This record gives sequence, structure tokens and C-alpha cells, in this order.
Amino acid sequence: MENKDYKKFLKRVNQFEVFKNADIVNFMNSSRETGFNLKRLALACEIYKEMIVDRECVKFFGLAGALVPAGMQAILRDFVLEGYIDVLVSTGANLTHDLAETLGYHHLQGERNLKDLNDVDLHAEELNRIYDVFLPNNVYEGIEDFVRDLKIPEDNMSVSAFLHFLGEQLPDNSKSLLKACAEKKVPIFCPAFTDSGLALQLGFHHQKLNLNHFKDMLKMVDLAWDAKKAGVCFVGGGVPKNFIMQSLQFCPTSASYAIQITMDRPEPGGLSGATLSEAISWGKVNEEAKYSTVITDATIALPLILWYLKSVFS
Amino acid sequence: MENKDYKKFLKRVNQFEVFKNADIVNFMNSSRETGFNLKRLALACEIYKEMIVDRECVKFFGLAGALVPAGMQAILRDFVLEGYIDVLVSTGANLTHDLAETLGYHHLQGERNLKDLNDVDLHAEELNRIYDVFLPNNVYEGIEDFVRDLKIPEDNMSVSAFLHFLGEQLPDNSKSLLKACAEKKVPIFCPAFTDSGLALQLGFHHQKLNLNHFKDMLKMVDLAWDAKKAGVCFVGGGVPKNFIMQSLQFCPTSASYAIQITMDRPEPGGLSGATLSEAISWGKVNEEAKYSTVITDATIALPLILWYLKSVFS
Amino acid sequence: MENKDYKKFLKRVNQFEVFKNADIVNFMNSSRETGFNLKRLALACEIYKEMIVDRECVKFFGLAGALVPAGMQAILRDFVLEGYIDVLVSTGANLTHDLAETLGYHHLQGERNLKDLNDVDLHAEELNRIYDVFLPNNVYEGIEDFVRDLKIPEDNMSVSAFLHFLGEQLPDNSKSLLKACAEKKVPIFCPAFTDSGLALQLGFHHQKLNLNHFKDMLKMVDLAWDAKKAGVCFVGGGVPKNFIMQSLQFCPTSASYAIQITMDRPEPGGLSGATLSEAISWGKVNEEAKYSTVITDATIALPLILWYLKSVFS
Amino acid sequence: MENKDYKKFLKRVNQFEVFKNADIVNFMNSSRETGFNLKRLALACEIYKEMIVDRECVKFFGLAGALVPAGMQAILRDFVLEGYIDVLVSTGANLTHDLAETLGYHHLQGERNLKDLNDVDLHAEELNRIYDVFLPNNVYEGIEDFVRDLKIPEDNMSVSAFLHFLGEQLPDNSKSLLKACAEKKVPIFCPAFTDSGLALQLGFHHQKLNLNHFKDMLKMVDLAWDAKKAGVCFVGGGVPKNFIMQSLQFCPTSASYAIQITMDRPEPGGLSGATLSEAISWGKVNEEAKYSTVITDATIALPLILWYLKSVFS
Repeated sequence: MENKDYKKFLKRVNQFEVFKNADIVNFMNSSRETGFNLKRLALACEIYKEMIVDRECVKFFGLAGALVPAGMQAILRDFVLEGYIDVLVSTGANLTHDLAETLGYHHLQGERNLKDLNDVDLHAEELNRIYDVFLPNNVYEGIEDFVRDLKIPEDNMSVSAFLHFLGEQLPDNSKSLLKACAEKKVPIFCPAFTDSGLALQLGFHHQKLNLNHFKDMLKMVDLAWDAKKAGVCFVGGGVPKNFIMQSLQFCPTSASYAIQITMDRPEPGGLSGATLSEAISWGKVNEEAKYSTVITDATIALPLILWYLKSVFS
Repeated sequence: MENKDYKKFLKRVNQFEVFKNADIVNFMNSSRETGFNLKRLALACEIYKEMIVDRECVKFFGLAGALVPAGMQAILRDFVLEGYIDVLVSTGANLTHDLAETLGYHHLQGERNLKDLNDVDLHAEELNRIYDVFLPNNVYEGIEDFVRDLKIPEDNMSVSAFLHFLGEQLPDNSKSLLKACAEKKVPIFCPAFTDSGLALQLGFHHQKLNLNHFKDMLKMVDLAWDAKKAGVCFVGGGVPKNFIMQSLQFCPTSASYAIQITMDRPEPGGLSGATLSEAISWGKVNEEAKYSTVITDATIALPLILWYLKSVFS
Repeated sequence: MENKDYKKFLKRVNQFEVFKNADIVNFMNSSRETGFNLKRLALACEIYKEMIVDRECVKFFGLAGALVPAGMQAILRDFVLEGYIDVLVSTGANLTHDLAETLGYHHLQGERNLKDLNDVDLHAEELNRIYDVFLPNNVYEGIEDFVRDLKIPEDNMSVSAFLHFLGEQLPDNSKSLLKACAEKKVPIFCPAFTDSGLALQLGFHHQKLNLNHFKDMLKMVDLAWDAKKAGVCFVGGGVPKNFIMQSLQFCPTSASYAIQITMDRPEPGGLSGATLSEAISWGKVNEEAKYSTVITDATIALPLILWYLKSVFS
Repeated sequence: MENKDYKKFLKRVNQFEVFKNADIVNFMNSSRETGFNLKRLALACEIYKEMIVDRECVKFFGLAGALVPAGMQAILRDFVLEGYIDVLVSTGANLTHDLAETLGYHHLQGERNLKDLNDVDLHAEELNRIYDVFLPNNVYEGIEDFVRDLKIPEDNMSVSAFLHFLGEQLPDNSKSLLKACAEKKVPIFCPAFTDSGLALQLGFHHQKLNLNHFKDMLKMVDLAWDAKKAGVCFVGGGVPKNFIMQSLQFCPTSASYAIQITMDRPEPGGLSGATLSEAISWGKVNEEAKYSTVITDATIALPLILWYLKSVFS
């Protein structure tokens, strides 16, 4: 390769300034030509914007972990209400915690005095710890009461159909992700649904229930197959990432836009930390795709991306 | 706290030596009173040994990721054959890759010349990359042929019952984890089964299949409820960890022994990186439990633990 | 502990919303009562603000890595020019790269075509890679020319005195961190100075030079000893963190405010990943201190903190 | 690339078995053709062996962190005594802790009862915490007494000359790394020496001391320049890695063998997490080099590598 060649795609790093009256769009645009994870976050903003502008693109959103406990409920709801998500794949945990907040229960946080609390004491206090957030145990009683009284229309419906039904039962004007998806008819897939507190209560109180997971799997493949173009945004990895990826793998249309926000690392070989470049080898992301793997906590990245998108599209 | 008190539980760090004729039991025993992750690995060996010695203890083993691609198939099989696992919870990925190897397909590895290969080229070569391991695409055809011809006894059987049936179909004298579990009657739970290449082929060729995931969930709760004592070993986190943990959470018997091997970190709040101490607040691990969170790659830890256990119990 | 007690310090997680016309101060204030790393970043903003408001507080800033290559030069300069740093401890790398940019050389970045570039090719092109940033090799010639012609006033001056002298030689109106520190009389300590490209050139061309590192060490202890109150901000860990910490360890005044931004983890036992809580055991941070360990890439956190501070103090 | 080409360098993953009467050489040889970090650890063993066999190769060993607190003192000493290290570059921390143990002080460890100890209590107990190891504060008094009485031969000697002198003062038959290096005439470089508890005591009690760091820097460049072949082993990153790398960068002989053991990650752009492949772009590692970046805790990797090497060369 000759000197003149690499200059085609390399430019000066932007030693940018931040002004007090900056706005988030300028901030991200300035960050776009820097380095390390700031650049990748700015690139993720740009790619998400392009996914939205591209009307042929179906936007798949994979949501791992439990982000509602960390205050992300309204952020996630707004991704749905603003039309930034077409298909949601979630863990059961996010749905369980969304339900808890929507039913009027709350996660707790605060500065702890080092001498006051430890996990043994927390257990005695019936406070379940999620890193620096605490879930009072009584939330499960509230979920149990709600779930027991549900009139589930069909024992063999798919998980996504059940979750749509569930969202419809929830109060308006809430911050609920389940409700927002029901309203906007955004399907929620949850392949590991029985791995959740919500499903446990369902199983205990609706013994004939056999939600059809295979129906979801095939519906998801259809959605991927039918998409003229596909875009993916992965918040964490886990089952949501893999479920979207396996649906795209054998489709004519692999992802043309791809964003991943994760704190996992690639070297131990797990999918959660695997790079988006690796996905090209599988045909999950196509080789002409724009993609950005951002190594940062989703609680930082997601609100910033939402702020950027709301500002760009306002 | 007075000076004399902390001395009850603090001892000198062992500045140990390694001799050329060392054996793995001596090595781990010497490492037991050091620090950082070596100590925790040695403690994990000790705890696993005690779990096995304790005849009342039911040993739950959560297997995330896809470790078979990295050469762990026979290691995992031996954990089952030696009686070190009573209940296995796995991702679909491990089962899919186990099936591939058992059907005669192989994962590839090798030193790559930096100038030779990248993900675009790999895609053209139909080599799917898993960090530094490669899966030739034709393996899916082999799985498809095998799955299409299966005579599945019941469309609504549980996933674990199906996986037992599947294991029985596999050849003897293989390194198969599925086969070993079938032989030793170790139940395999796979809550996110539809998130796997194996399930995709099942769904495509057995359209009436509706494996009952709720039956698995309730069976798992029964196993946890019936255990006089419980021990857990988590290889990675993900759904396998959570599924075991949610079953123990509301049982009279939370885990008395707990091992976790992970490279994920706790601060982003996901369960995969959550410490075992945190699990005490939830009542998933009991406050008198012996536990060890080892931050290392499972490909390093698992074979060493197996070597230690085989040596101790030989 | 009774129920009423923990309520004193636990509050509801704030399920906050982000509006398109948000500003950074509102954004961080809303994030203050959430969880995981967003909360910790918001807390870091609050603590930095309080450090600045507290006129008795000497603000020590430890700067690891090489952040100038990633576009952080003007961000760092503004921390100095705005008066947010009283004492800077840096790696030699940051100073070398700052000098390179100030002398008119540039780091490069860009989207690479996967098939175009790898490390062997980059070496042939004389492009030194720093993750996704590239430093053309000719920058070293520019530094060499500049360094060779320096009239160093004294062979045995301290490193910090030399760096002040160096900053004075640099052009006005630049984005230089060295220049800004010279102008604002912010001392720069660089305990591992000889571990840098800048020092190599100095050593080659000024053979009698013996910058007195012990003088720096003792001056730093004096600064820590004389501080009525101390605040620390660590960007990464390494020598800069330890050098500040060892100076505070035996002083009457350990840190009352402490911020750490790092991607390293605590379990391998290195100081770079060690928590600020651990520093309390050493007496480096005092037990009444406000502190926040933020696990995120500094390229994301630093510009956001600067934006917050400029907005608060405008 | 055609099918036949990639087969030249790709082979089947070895689904290896571990037998109770395994030895470490067989274990590592079996692991050599697997994947993820086990493979890389096995490759590191092989590379280290080849470095030793290659009589032209000068073996540079970079030692970050503080590994002596975690029980690695005799392990490190044996690397020196066995002739596996020709040039050592270390942090000041490792030397300070080595001195403490050699003077008869000890690091402590133990299972802590969660309700017993926290960092505030540890401070009250004068126990400095290093993750899960504890250093009693009185060790500093012992170091102070020892350092005060030293008869330092020359105020302007290089750091490495001073460290050789220091090693000579230490008792025989100890586990001391400093002593072993003095005996075997292995030079120890410590570019950030003034960033250590040892240097602080030196500075307090020997006010005229001005150890010549530039002399070390130039001596290190000479060693790199004179090496017919170079091999590097980095335990962690930090200053030791960079100091070795900057010396090799401009030499005719960049490293032909390279091993890195680290838990840091590459994406934030710091040298500690940078891959060895990246070093090829800089000309620090040559493009024909055999290299292995192992992502694991050094406390696990180092003793295993030593065990392997002692067995191979016995």
C-alpha cells in the first residue's frame, strides 16, 4: 500500500473543545473524529440516526441485563415511543423489573455508610442487592397478586403474544416499557422467559400455561427474512443478542447497521463480548455495514444516545 | 475490633514454591493461602471437593457461553461421568456445538498470519469465527440432516426430557456432553433453548413442536426445593446462572457451596458479573456458605479444577 | 438494623427522562439518583464541583495513559486553564504526545476497511497504532529537532522544574497542556519521566542531564503535607495515581474528595483497578470523604465532566 | 483465498482429556491446540521455553503491579535463579514488598466474615488492604530502620546500580527477588522508582541522594541495542512494559518472542491492555515473532509457567 492510499481513509484526530453552551449534537459531532470509546459512542449515535432515516431498515433492539433497576425505564420507553425500535428482544429480568415499577414498587439507591450495610445485613432487611441498587423483597408479592389474577386468553400463545396482552393490562401514563410496546405494537421477544421472576409467578398460578417458544422463534426468523434492510442495536449481549443474530444469519439480509454497547470482553470467547467485526464472518452483519462496538456502561451510553436522537429529530 | 480478633481469621500469605515434580493437589493446596485470583481458584477447588464429599449436597452446574469450541468437550463430559454434576443448566450454544463435534464435525484453530485472514475473508471462506476458533459453515447441514430425521416422541415434552431423548440417540464412546448426561441421568435444563442453532433446525423440520418450557421451570424449582443441601458452580453467568439462582431464591435451602468462574465484571450491574456475596442478599447463597468468585477464563480454570478433583478422588 | 434506619440513606431510584432541550447540568443532576456507572459519573461531577467550591482544597489530578492521541488535548488544557487542577501528575506519554501536537504533528484516525490494514502493513507504512489511532513515525524526528536545540538551564533541576521550563518554550495560542501548566503555574510531576519518547531524546542529546527525581518526590510530599484539604481525581491508575496516593498516605490530611475513572478491575490486585474504598484502609482517602469510582473510558467521562463544570461555573 | 490455503494453518481443535496422573508439560502440550486463553497460556509456555533454548536471545521481563503481596515472591525469585530472566524491569512496589518480606514482615490473608471487616475498620486496625491481602502498617517502620542505616556508596549512581547494592545487603537463603538479582547479576531497572515506599524512606533519610535515572535509560537502550535477539515477557503492563518497549522500538532487533499476561483491555487505548499485535506496528515486536497475549490473572499464569519450565528443563 502506498502512502497516498491510507490517506484516503485516515484524517487528523480532532482535538476538540467543549463549550459551556454546547449541545449534545455538537458534542457528538465533535467527538466523531477522535479515538477510543468516545469516538465509537459518537459513531453509534450517527449510525442510529442513519438507521432511523433509512425507511427500509427494520430496527432490532437487543436488551440484556436488568437496566430498569438503574433508572433506565423511561429511557427505554422513549426509544419505543419515539419509533426508534421496531422489534425488541429482552431478558425476562427487564420485564419483571418494569412490571414492578409499573405496579408502584420501587428500586432503592443511596450512599451507604461503609460500616452500616453488608450483604448479610441486607438479607436480614429483605433488600436484594443489584450492585448499588436495592430491590425490597415485597415487590414479589405485588407481582404475584397481579399475575394470579390475569385472565390469560390462551395457554399456548407465543411469549410475544402474551407480552403484548400483558402490556395492555398496564395503566396508561406510566413509564412502562411493556405498555409502550403494546401501544406501539412493537413485538417483544423473550426467548429465556422462564428464566424470570415474572414467569415463575405465572407458572405457579397458571399451571396449564405452555407459552409456545418455538412460535416466537419462527416469527422472529420471518421478521428478519422479510426485512429489506436490517439494523441492530445490542445493549449488552446474552440471549437477546444471539437471538437477533441467529435470525439474521441465514437471511438474505444481514445487518447493514450495527451498534453494540457492552462491558464484556472478547478474549474469553463468549458472544456478549464478541466484536461486531466477528459477526461479519458469520454473515450476521454484512461486510458493507456501518458498525460500532462501544465498550462502556449502557447506563451512560443509552441516555446520551437518546438525547442525541431526540435532538436530531426534533 | 481488637488486634487479637482479626488474628483469628488472618494468616501469613504463603510465599510458596513450585517444584518440578509438583502435583496439582500440592499446587492448589500451596496456593490456598496466597492472594488474588490464584487463591480464589485454589479455594474453588477446595469447595468443589467438599461439595462432592458432602453426600447430602445436590450439585447444580451452570454452563454459559460456548466452551465446546475451545476444546472443553471432554472436560465437561468428565465432570458428568465422574459424578461431579447432578443438574446441568446450559445455553443452547454448548449443546449445538457438542452435537456438531459428536456428529463428526470439528472446530478449527491455528496461528493465523496477520496478513492472511480477516472477517470479510473468513465469511467468503464460510468460516464462522468465535474469537480464535473457527466453525466451518457446513456443520449446520450435518445438524440439519440429523435433526430432520429425529422421531420426537412427544411435541409437548419438556426441554430437559427432549435433551435426554436426544442424548440417547448419540453414539457411544464419544466425547459428547449430551450423551454423558443421558447415560448418567443428569438432567439438562436449557431455558433459552430456542436461542440456538439446534432449536432452529428443530423448528424448521418439526413444525408442531412446542417443548414445554414451563414444565422445566417447575421441575427445576422442585429439584431445588427437594435438595437437603445445595452447591452451585457457575461457568460464566447468563441464563444458566440466573435459572439456578431463581430456583434457589425462594427455597428453604439456599446454596451452601458456591463457585463462580467469570470474566465479566460487577460494576455494570449484570448478573453474569455479579459477585457471590451479592447473592447472599437475595437469599440465593446462604450466609454460612463457602464461596469463591474466580475472575479468570473458564478454559483455564475448568481443566485445572477437573485435574485437581480427579487426583483427589483417585 | 431496623427498617427505619436504612431508610435514612436509601431513596427511590430516579426513573428519569431525557428531553431534547436538556442541558448537561440537568442531565447529571437527574442521573445522580440512578444506579451503576451513570450514577457514579454524576456523583463524580458533583464531587468535582464541590472540590472547586471548597477554597481550602488542593486539587491533585493524576493522568495515566496517553489521552492526547484520542483527542483530549484541549479538554485537558481547559481543566488547567479553568483552574480545575492545582497539581498535575502525568505519564511521560501524555507529555510526549502533547509536545508532538503542539509542534504541528498530528495523530490520525479513520474508519479502516478491514481488508486494507493490519499491524504488519502499518509498520511498513510507519504508522504506529494506539488502538484505533495512528501516530506517523516522523513525529519523532520533529521532537528530536526541538529537544536537541533546547538550552536546558540546569542539569540537576527537578523534573517538574524542567517541565515548567519546557512549557515556557512552547507557542502561545496552542492547545498544549504543557504550555497551559506553565502559564497557570500548575506543577507537573512525572515520576516515570525516563519512560517516555521525550526523555529518550533528551538523554541522547543532553548527556549530562540528571534531572533530580528525588527533589520532585519530596516537593510532592510537601505539597500534600501543606494542603489544608485535599481532593484527588485519577484518570486511569498507574504511576500518577500511586504517586499522589503515597504522598497523601502519611500526611495529616488524606483526601476529602476522590474521583477515579478507570477501566481496570480490582480483582487482580493492581493499584490501577483498586477501588477508592480500598484507599480508606491505607489512610489515603479519609473515612468521611465523598468519593466515586467510575468504571468507564476516560474519553467519555472527561469531556462530560468538563462540560458539566464549565456550565455550573459559567 | 482458496480452501486449500487456509488449511495450511488451521487444524482441528483438540478436545483434550485431563488424566489424574497428568503432568504439567502434557497438560500444556494438550492445551496448545484448543482456543481462548487456555491456548494462549499454553502458547506462552512454549514461547518461553523457546526463548530459553535460543542462546542468542536476551530475555527482558517487565513486572508491573505488586505481586509479592499475593505470594509470588519465591516464584519470581526462581525465574531469576533458574536463569529465565536476563533483564528485569519492575515497579517500585514489587521491590518495596519484596524488601518487607525479606526483612521478616509479612502480608496477611484469610477468609473474612462479611460482618467483621470493612475499609474503615481496617484503617483503624492499621491494616492496609490490597484487594484480599492485608499489609500491617508497621512494615513501614521496619523498612525505615533498614533504609536509614544504609551506607549508600554514591549519591548519583543509577537506580539499577543502587538496587544491585541493595540486594547485596540482604540475607542469604531468603526468598528475596532483590537478593536473587544481585547474586545472578540480573540488572533491575525501575524507571518510576521515586513512586514507591522504599524511595520515600530513602529520600527522607538520604537528602543528597539523586539517583541518575537517565543513566538507567541509556543503559537499557544499550542492552536492547546489543542484543542479537530479544524476547520479552510482560506481567501486567504499566511502566515496565513501556520501558522495555521504548528501548526496543528504535533498535535493529525488535522482539522475536513476546508474552504478555494482563487483565487490562485494549479498547481504552492504554499500553497495559494493548495487544502484542499492536506492538508490531511500532516495530517493538517484529513481524516474524512468536507472541501470545494471555488475558488472565498473573497469579494463576506465572506459577503454571514456572512449573512448566522447571519440568521441561529438569
